[in-house]
Amino acid sequence: MAKVAVLMGSSSDLPKIQSCLDTLKKLDVAFEVRVMSAHRTPDVVKEYISGAAAKGIRVIIAAAGGAAHLAGVCASHTILPVIGIPVEGGALNGMDALLATVQMPGGIPVATVGVGSGGATNAALLAIQILALNDSALAERFAADRAARRQKVLDADEAMMKQYGN
Amino acid sequence: MAKVAVLMGSSSDLPKIQSCLDTLKKLDVAFEVRVMSAHRTPDVVKEYISGAAAKGIRVIIAAAGGAAHLAGVCASHTILPVIGIPVEGGALNGMDALLATVQMPGGIPVATVGVGSGGATNAALLAIQILALNDSALAERFAADRAARRQKVLDADEAMMKQYGN
Amino acid sequence: MAKVAVLMGSSSDLPKIQSCLDTLKKLDVAFEVRVMSAHRTPDVVKEYISGAAAKGIRVIIAAAGGAAHLAGVCASHTILPVIGIPVEGGALNGMDALLATVQMPGGIPVATVGVGSGGATNAALLAIQILALNDSALAERFAADRAARRQKVLDADEAMMKQYGN
Amino acid sequence: MAKVAVLMGSSSDLPKIQSCLDTLKKLDVAFEVRVMSAHRTPDVVKEYISGAAAKGIRVIIAAAGGAAHLAGVCASHTILPVIGIPVEGGALNGMDALLATVQMPGGIPVATVGVGSGGATNAALLAIQILALNDSALAERFAADRAARRQKVLDADEAMMKQYGN
Amino acid sequence: MAKVAVLMGSSSDLPKIQSCLDTLKKLDVAFEVRVMSAHRTPDVVKEYISGAAAKGIRVIIAAAGGAAHLAGVCASHTILPVIGIPVEGGALNGMDALLATVQMPGGIPVATVGVGSGGATNAALLAIQILALNDSALAERFAADRAARRQKVLDADEAMMKQYGN
Amino acid sequence: MAKVAVLMGSSSDLPKIQSCLDTLKKLDVAFEVRVMSAHRTPDVVKEYISGAAAKGIRVIIAAAGGAAHLAGVCASHTILPVIGIPVEGGALNGMDALLATVQMPGGIPVATVGVGSGGATNAALLAIQILALNDSALAERFAADRAARRQKVLDADEAMMKQYGN
Amino acid sequence: MAKVAVLMGSSSDLPKIQSCLDTLKKLDVAFEVRVMSAHRTPDVVKEYISGAAAKGIRVIIAAAGGAAHLAGVCASHTILPVIGIPVEGGALNGMDALLATVQMPGGIPVATVGVGSGGATNAALLAIQILALNDSALAERFAADRAARRQKVLDADEAMMKQYGN
Amino acid sequence: MAKVAVLMGSSSDLPKIQSCLDTLKKLDVAFEVRVMSAHRTPDVVKEYISGAAAKGIRVIIAAAGGAAHLAGVCASHTILPVIGIPVEGGALNGMDALLATVQMPGGIPVATVGVGSGGATNAALLAIQILALNDSALAERFAADRAARRQKVLDADEAMMKQYGN
Repeated sequence: MAKVAVLMGSSSDLPKIQSCLDTLKKLDVAFEVRVMSAHRTPDVVKEYISGAAAKGIRVIIAAAGGAAHLAGVCASHTILPVIGIPVEGGALNGMDALLATVQMPGGIPVATVGVGSGGATNAALLAIQILALNDSALAERFAADRAARRQKVLDADEAMMKQYGN
Repeated sequence: MAKVAVLMGSSSDLPKIQSCLDTLKKLDVAFEVRVMSAHRTPDVVKEYISGAAAKGIRVIIAAAGGAAHLAGVCASHTILPVIGIPVEGGALNGMDALLATVQMPGGIPVATVGVGSGGATNAALLAIQILALNDSALAERFAADRAARRQKVLDADEAMMKQYGN
Repeated sequence: MAKVAVLMGSSSDLPKIQSCLDTLKKLDVAFEVRVMSAHRTPDVVKEYISGAAAKGIRVIIAAAGGAAHLAGVCASHTILPVIGIPVEGGALNGMDALLATVQMPGGIPVATVGVGSGGATNAALLAIQILALNDSALAERFAADRAARRQKVLDADEAMMKQYGN
Repeated sequence: MAKVAVLMGSSSDLPKIQSCLDTLKKLDVAFEVRVMSAHRTPDVVKEYISGAAAKGIRVIIAAAGGAAHLAGVCASHTILPVIGIPVEGGALNGMDALLATVQMPGGIPVATVGVGSGGATNAALLAIQILALNDSALAERFAADRAARRQKVLDADEAMMKQYGN
Repeated sequence: MAKVAVLMGSSSDLPKIQSCLDTLKKLDVAFEVRVMSAHRTPDVVKEYISGAAAKGIRVIIAAAGGAAHLAGVCASHTILPVIGIPVEGGALNGMDALLATVQMPGGIPVATVGVGSGGATNAALLAIQILALNDSALAERFAADRAARRQKVLDADEAMMKQYGN
Repeated sequence: MAKVAVLMGSSSDLPKIQSCLDTLKKLDVAFEVRVMSAHRTPDVVKEYISGAAAKGIRVIIAAAGGAAHLAGVCASHTILPVIGIPVEGGALNGMDALLATVQMPGGIPVATVGVGSGGATNAALLAIQILALNDSALAERFAADRAARRQKVLDADEAMMKQYGN
Repeated sequence: MAKVAVLMGSSSDLPKIQSCLDTLKKLDVAFEVRVMSAHRTPDVVKEYISGAAAKGIRVIIAAAGGAAHLAGVCASHTILPVIGIPVEGGALNGMDALLATVQMPGGIPVATVGVGSGGATNAALLAIQILALNDSALAERFAADRAARRQKVLDADEAMMKQYGN
Repeated sequence: MAKVAVLMGSSSDLPKIQSCLDTLKKLDVAFEVRVMSAHRTPDVVKEYISGAAAKGIRVIIAAAGGAAHLAGVCASHTILPVIGIPVEGGALNGMDALLATVQMPGGIPVATVGVGSGGATNAALLAIQILALNDSALAERFAADRAARRQKVLDADEAMMKQYGN
């Protein structure tokens, strides 16, 4: 049963959030991927989000660019936590998406991650941190992932020290 | 019968868009004023906007600040023209509202006016320009308003010339 | 008889607003395309815009980049609604065009659409929404276009669900 | 036993995040409030955050302004979800705090809320949404809070309709 | 006979450019002050600017805020040098005026000075530098003004050295 | 005898200001081109600028990128008019150069042109407008250049009308 | 004998950098305070900076706002380390000063501190860190200052814990 | 014995700071290069920085992009001067890194250099200026490097004068 829903406003956003899906898969979290638009299919968003909790979804991840309303619109239809990924690109390169996602009015939070590389990965990891609060096996997988990221830095450090002979 | 609907996301926005209402009144255009929120009362927005055309509304004006989704959400529920007023204020002083209003995805336009003084007035005037396409009396009132604005500049010019003796 | 005038400040802007022309064509709206410059041919702009209503033009669309004055200058010469497309590009990538188009003083509105992909399409659609207020056949074509955009998202959603097996 | 830790980099930030504390209190969530600095007391941050899970903390909220490193530094020491509040103020009015909080590298997410009014409230509500995933009584209180926010908009709408006679 | 024309888009801009007028007066340069608007009285702008050279004007100074088109529109009607003052204020505090004034297309220059204090004074001084190329008495007055500005810094330096005892 | 001095902070700026040199040549204005740096050869800048008037230079054009100090430093050493070209490029793409060039303190103006394409051309044209105040042959060449730019727009307009059949 | 020179472009900057002077005094570092301007007294800057090392100055601190050239100009005249304080204020509130100070070309570094509160204090502390490399007594005073700052956070933390009863 | 430590948050930053290492080498300053992350290996950062002074390090250079916390975190663990390089790149192209590096709170300075080309070179040169205060041989090498940079401008100037025949 899917625990995380990953929504994007357009299938053209997929490459930019691929690392989100990869991270969920790698840490063995069941997820659904959907394309729905706050503006072109608002009824689908409403119906899907309203029914999400009942079908086992615990966390919503919504990615959009430009005047990125998707995460906020999702948040208006559920009390589940909603994570917003502002998608890089366009004339303003995602600064519009960042502000349209993060500056939500009091009462309707969107947990916003960074625009650009890193943000999509972090959306997955944040969802996992939330789920891991009540899933100790997932918490262990998360801790292992973090240890691996740490090890990667340590390895790069060692390689750099060799290269520069210090 | 109201021709224009003026929506705001919070009643605290009223002073910032007062000139919109005043302008509609001055040019004798029937309008409705409503408070509804893209995030706190999305169903009210949907229901109101979906039924707007049927009750005679021809143009929607929507004002919001921060991650200003109201105009975009309205636009997703109607084929009537939607005018967005990005409301000044907050930590980013309306730059967030401007980008969240204007950067709409292809397919769902929002006719955006300026953030700050001038924008609210212009939202009303833009609605009137649209209505005036099929209302020659209104077109005359609009032309008179424009002439008055022109005269005001001419008067200020004359006063300035007197003051500086040129 | 043309209903919409599409103006650009330089023919080099054409590729960036092609989707505006394509959209007008697709929805079968008669339009004129002109190159005129607020600064290099201001008299042509004035003469053309002043006479636009008389020759049947109902909506003006003006596209320009940098210190984008074209839409504002058009608006100063007519009471027809003017839609401004801030053209992406240049050192500041269109942020200058956006602000120079949208921040009009009270009295002279410009209906601004987004900078970058989506904006040019939306300028056409906004013009159509305005014309459709008094053209029910056009309103139907607009509604069909919107339905097609909706369907495209639904199709992408279905494909995504297949791809990800949810 | 406290479930939420609210940290701020300086006690001068307290007025700007008061609504966070008020919201947690109103929804009856146990919380701790601490002043600690990523730069002036990094060892205290490390020790406190490292031990947070063991003493029952489930969510960390960290508020800071300027080059706001506090939330990111907290996130580096725990696998608990960390919510970052970029504090408004200073010469750049919080744009620095927003970017320094949200643009985290892949691997170490910070769930960022908006800068300025609304952000602090939303940090509390986001923490509550996370906790409510496994606390149905809290979920009910959250739903009641959201309903109250909805009602407030409905009341404002009614008042506005009366005032404007529509 | 006036040598410099100082135009502003609105008489409300006067306090913000007072130092421009004061500087012209102090250095004994004849000038005219006019209120005219690129958008509300475009014909007045055109007529005035087209006739400016014939009546002895050598340099145009134009001040405007927001989508500040005035200087650019003046420049389109004359081959006299045009100096643009982007006026501080409004929601974006003059960043819009700066970009709308300075980012002119190739072919139609506007000599832009800074937004905010200093800019208006500098517009006057720049006009004087231009006129002084062929007016040695004015060049001397300009040099004396610069020397006075230099002396003011030297005096402040001396006072500071006394205060801090170095 | 050279009338205009064109300075750049680095020879790598040459391609970005080539149109400035081309425009001066095309309008037959004698000019000098120099590479000198406000920071690496400040004494050369001082000596050259201090002696510029004596050797017949009437206008200084200075181009620099990043923390673009060159135009301001030139202005501090002369009473000749100084035109600043903020050079596009670098991580901030010339926004830094624009602000560092235009925001001069009261007393030391720099006539700033746009960052990016158009700015370098306009620097040359602005210098020519200044020189043309006392050189009627140059004024005629300038007017011819402007007429040619106008004609180019008219030609593009005609081509566009043919292409689109209006 | 003064070890640190603190320069400001205008005596009106004094209140904004008072904490710099106070910090130097508190940590018992001899310093000189001077008012000199990159643009109004460039020769004074050159002479003072060129002679600074000979009279015992080891670190230069330069504060300026707007197109803040002072620190960069100082750096061009010495091989001593130069610290730049971008002064808050003006229409762009110091963003211009920040970019004009920090974005120096390769070869001429300016050690830039933050714009706004904190920056001026940090300029003093950075100068002290540099001097302390060869002054162990100063290093001890610096360490004590840092410990005091740490203690202040600890005290605020204790007070906060008392207030909130955790 | 290494005098300078150069740290980067990720080995992918190496190409962007290569000129820092090259400059240190060219001027014959012993340095260490390490990869360590404020967020992924905070304990390594703490241990390394805490022990840096004892092993002879006198200046720390830290480079990071995005929410660039590395330099600030280093500064929290040492009283040695810390130089921060904001690394260009990502969706916001380093503006985030610049603000996250430079806007440090009072008490914990980071000497920030520019984002983009020039910054990395300047970080090395700034470290050298600091070390050169007590190393006259290094001061001579620094002066020679500066003279060479000066000569390079002079040569470019000569070449340009030849090319343009002035």
